[in-house]
Amino acid sequence: MIRYDDKLPTSIIERDSEYKPPRTLRSWLIGRPLSTADAPHQTIGKLVGLAVFASDALSSTAYATQEILGVIAFAGTMAYGYLFPISMAIVTLLAIVTISYEQTIHAYPGGGGAYIVARDNLGELPAQTAGAALLTDYILTVSVSVSSGVAQIVSAYPAMFPYRVWIAVAAVIFIMLINLRGVKESGTAFAIPTYFFVIVMTFTVGMGLIRYFTGNLGMVINPPHFEASGVISTITPFILLHAFANGTTALTGVEAISNGITAFKEPRSRNAGITLIWMSLILGSLFLGLSFITGHIHAVFSEQETVISQLARTIYGGRGIPYLMLISGTTVILIMAANTAFADFPRLGALHAGDGFLPRQLTYRGSRLVYSRGIITLAIIASLLIIIFQASVTRLIPLYAIGVFLSFTLSQAGMARRWWKIGHLKEGEEIVEPGSTLRYEKGWKYRMVINGFGALCTAVVMVVFAVTKFAEGAWVVLILTPILVMIFFSIHHHYKGVASKLSLDNFRAVPPHNLRHRVIMLVSGVHQGTLAALRYSRRLSDDITAVHVSIEPAESEKVRRKWETWGEGVRMVVLNSPYRLLLEPLLEYITDLAKQRQPGETMTIVVPEFVSNNRITATLHMNTADYLRSQLKRYPGIVIIDVPYHVHA
Amino acid sequence: MIRYDDKLPTSIIERDSEYKPPRTLRSWLIGRPLSTADAPHQTIGKLVGLAVFASDALSSTAYATQEILGVIAFAGTMAYGYLFPISMAIVTLLAIVTISYEQTIHAYPGGGGAYIVARDNLGELPAQTAGAALLTDYILTVSVSVSSGVAQIVSAYPAMFPYRVWIAVAAVIFIMLINLRGVKESGTAFAIPTYFFVIVMTFTVGMGLIRYFTGNLGMVINPPHFEASGVISTITPFILLHAFANGTTALTGVEAISNGITAFKEPRSRNAGITLIWMSLILGSLFLGLSFITGHIHAVFSEQETVISQLARTIYGGRGIPYLMLISGTTVILIMAANTAFADFPRLGALHAGDGFLPRQLTYRGSRLVYSRGIITLAIIASLLIIIFQASVTRLIPLYAIGVFLSFTLSQAGMARRWWKIGHLKEGEEIVEPGSTLRYEKGWKYRMVINGFGALCTAVVMVVFAVTKFAEGAWVVLILTPILVMIFFSIHHHYKGVASKLSLDNFRAVPPHNLRHRVIMLVSGVHQGTLAALRYSRRLSDDITAVHVSIEPAESEKVRRKWETWGEGVRMVVLNSPYRLLLEPLLEYITDLAKQRQPGETMTIVVPEFVSNNRITATLHMNTADYLRSQLKRYPGIVIIDVPYHVHA
Repeated sequence: MIRYDDKLPTSIIERDSEYKPPRTLRSWLIGRPLSTADAPHQTIGKLVGLAVFASDALSSTAYATQEILGVIAFAGTMAYGYLFPISMAIVTLLAIVTISYEQTIHAYPGGGGAYIVARDNLGELPAQTAGAALLTDYILTVSVSVSSGVAQIVSAYPAMFPYRVWIAVAAVIFIMLINLRGVKESGTAFAIPTYFFVIVMTFTVGMGLIRYFTGNLGMVINPPHFEASGVISTITPFILLHAFANGTTALTGVEAISNGITAFKEPRSRNAGITLIWMSLILGSLFLGLSFITGHIHAVFSEQETVISQLARTIYGGRGIPYLMLISGTTVILIMAANTAFADFPRLGALHAGDGFLPRQLTYRGSRLVYSRGIITLAIIASLLIIIFQASVTRLIPLYAIGVFLSFTLSQAGMARRWWKIGHLKEGEEIVEPGSTLRYEKGWKYRMVINGFGALCTAVVMVVFAVTKFAEGAWVVLILTPILVMIFFSIHHHYKGVASKLSLDNFRAVPPHNLRHRVIMLVSGVHQGTLAALRYSRRLSDDITAVHVSIEPAESEKVRRKWETWGEGVRMVVLNSPYRLLLEPLLEYITDLAKQRQPGETMTIVVPEFVSNNRITATLHMNTADYLRSQLKRYPGIVIIDVPYHVHA
Repeated sequence: MIRYDDKLPTSIIERDSEYKPPRTLRSWLIGRPLSTADAPHQTIGKLVGLAVFASDALSSTAYATQEILGVIAFAGTMAYGYLFPISMAIVTLLAIVTISYEQTIHAYPGGGGAYIVARDNLGELPAQTAGAALLTDYILTVSVSVSSGVAQIVSAYPAMFPYRVWIAVAAVIFIMLINLRGVKESGTAFAIPTYFFVIVMTFTVGMGLIRYFTGNLGMVINPPHFEASGVISTITPFILLHAFANGTTALTGVEAISNGITAFKEPRSRNAGITLIWMSLILGSLFLGLSFITGHIHAVFSEQETVISQLARTIYGGRGIPYLMLISGTTVILIMAANTAFADFPRLGALHAGDGFLPRQLTYRGSRLVYSRGIITLAIIASLLIIIFQASVTRLIPLYAIGVFLSFTLSQAGMARRWWKIGHLKEGEEIVEPGSTLRYEKGWKYRMVINGFGALCTAVVMVVFAVTKFAEGAWVVLILTPILVMIFFSIHHHYKGVASKLSLDNFRAVPPHNLRHRVIMLVSGVHQGTLAALRYSRRLSDDITAVHVSIEPAESEKVRRKWETWGEGVRMVVLNSPYRLLLEPLLEYITDLAKQRQPGETMTIVVPEFVSNNRITATLHMNTADYLRSQLKRYPGIVIIDVPYHVHA
């Protein structure tokens, strides 16, 4: 026996939409739409994953050594002695950060960026701060790396200089389109140049080391002129710190994989973790090798020729084909570094939006299963930055990297806190957090120290970075980040407010039914369309008022006469409008009626609307209905009914 | 006793709207709004009327003589012998046209432009042709006269040359704003410079004649170089006709008053007629005087210096203050000639629109009782022409004047036909036409000859104009006018079609009431706003289907669960959208239902809409309702109900 109470009284029918999106210009540009069921097939393996997420990190080998040299170069040949030790320190930091993040990837298989780790372990404010810092940094990654790639092209072909901004913007749009196609296809598109760069760079460094150890490497021939502004002075600890901070730009991009775990094939964490370690090994060894060789060939810091270029022509003994391969590979990977940001920014944006700190629209996955709106937003802001800063790397770079280190610090502090919580769990006890599940683990102390030490190191680097680069532009980021965090919180406040006001949680079961229903019907002329609306209105209520705004007396006279014949006895109010305005007298009248409304009275405005099936002839009609509706909507408790009448003429 | 049948069952209540438009930037720019009751006070007397309607005609004295000279100049000093006779012929034509139009003004006291005269006497096609020709010509009047005025400024200050297009556009906008204030105020604003020009020009011509007859006028000192392209040859009749045609540009603008009769104070016809005669007298005598003096001082046709300038410095013996007054007065009146077009174009446009040959919107009088939309349309098209032709008078002028002569011809042919009709009426008989009333008059034969001869003369001039200027650009007008006429007729066809389809004339009294009412309610989430819409839907019908498009399965699950609790047993259809599209599956579903509809079934779509009272926070919500509605409107027989819910957050 089925008791009535057991059955839900509501029938819910499911129906699969058979709508297939047609092939359009859009689908040609970004590929055919993907069904949600295709999502698992859109994940990537380790090889492609390395290409997608590592181009940002690896591309920094193209400038990190040069950045260190820039700070200590004024000390003359003495500087070369410091270059390798500083690089060693940076690689050590890289190792710490890598181990830290490897732990994070396993703890957060659903994606463990700084945002999630900070949110689950430190609270909303640190999480939003980490997110704001990262989002800013992703935008800057796009602007900086595309600008710097274009700068390489422009160095090679000075005639392109006046078009650099537009080349850069075109590159951003191109990367945007590839990313709108989806992460899998962008992975394939990007794998080839990434691996080309890695192979050519490894070969170059290897050749350099072989030539050095066989004793026939020599010095840079015809080095570019070094424009030292100051006199040669001694190197202070502060200068060493500054140089160290500059070199840490090599670490930007290391966090990318931890944000993008869900893009990997199962087992996600394992695949992502291995990819991270590969990436760090490649990055660390290339960077160390480059710094070692740079120190021994006495490459010069210069705006005219990059250190990479000096190094390549020393190793290959001139500007031959291997030289050109390295330079072009470097150019391409610099532009492609932007791709990493395109892979991560929309995911992070969707996370924020899902938690209600950014507009909800960012959670929407487009026809190709990527967060299209985030991708487009990133492209627009990055392009604007490129246009504003005229694609100048020098002016963009001081804004860069602080955000990354801020998020490193927060992420690792969060992880340290997480280990501490784990250490205080009883055996068998579990805490389920949104991003991960906490279970007791034996080595928690040891792991907490790793993450804690990582947090400390990156915090120090961040402070050094902020202090040494403050005047150059870092202040912009230090002001912008808190502002962004404030905006995030006010968005959150708005969504929370709306949700609580609409919530059914404390809603009384059935509110009293409305007692009266008043219908106001707008009449501009009396014809078949009007009568259709009248017929509809009469079904709604017996209390109908037709309202006509009289602009031209002759026209109104016609309306009156026809209404007397066709109005079915419904009362009509003619509003004389001395200033020939349509909307204002109407709104005034409705406001008036709304004020006199009894409690529980519903008011409905019926708007007959002429709908033309032809866009050209539609312009021949007044089409005031849309404007009217947008104004009437503002009045609370008024329902607007659109009775369209179609004329095929 | 009042019989029930005697009383109309419909109560019509009249109510004066008390809405007073607030003072805004707009009211500061174009003046406080005027009530329809103010209309009679917005008429003008003869003095102001002359200023408003004559600036176009009078300004042509600034270039008509020069235009004749341009054709015959290659004949050397021989040319000067022809200048005065040609001018005499043109003044004779002016007299014929004036007398013709004077008759029209009295016959059509409600405004007797070529359009109305042709419509009432020749039929729709000639009327639309005349209207198209005139509307085109008014636009060209604005472009040509403003460009030519700006050319004077630019000749004086060559540094302004790069900005000429924008100065011209700014002038058009300025004139537009003055005209949006209304004809009375624009009259006052324009009276001063018009009379300044008339006085200075009359004084100059008078001085010139006195100096000539006292024998101390002499020749132009340092005349500009004449660049003759051909050799000196004899003057053929064709050349004389070409010169004559060029000189007839002096007649452009004569028709203005007949179009604008309603702007005059009562007695309208009398006032307008007298103003027309004044205008022609001033125009004719100034033009003749200028031609006479030009012939005797041997002024030279040149692009460097205008004939007016040569004449003025010969009469005043140099570039003193009187010279500068004449040149600046000429500049101002050239720019102001545009004002005449601004007074007439909107009126003519409203006439066309009222007859259903142009978009109805043009019949709407704005807050200042002028046809604001016509004024703005004219300003936009004229500005576009100025921008396209780079404010070059030389390139614009061949397009000009054909339209005027075409409308002259049609208008006078129409008048001749009218006299013929009057001549065949019996005494006491009357024919009432939309624009005038026909009664027998004695002198109809004589008057018919005047109008007929006028029509013949202007037709000849038009043909000469079209032939001699065909290659220079007149062909554009010869192609454009028929195209415009076709557009006018297709607009008319559309309006007639709509009116007949909506007409109640053959409409059966009460159509059968709809038997079923099906309500489809869209649900994106279940909250208080949804329940308000549900409550409303339940009052409409018992046949309700809630439709939810499932994009993210997790979200849909929430909606289902909540609907089971709050859905009041209403069935719900969940549409699974595999491509994460909202609109397309919904439209597909509704189309499906609409197809299965029984005869007489009404379908209503209820769209709950989130309305934010804050523009910034509104961007945080999807706001798909508007787009949805614009798509749903296309389906015939579907009513759309908007149930807004307001959240103040």
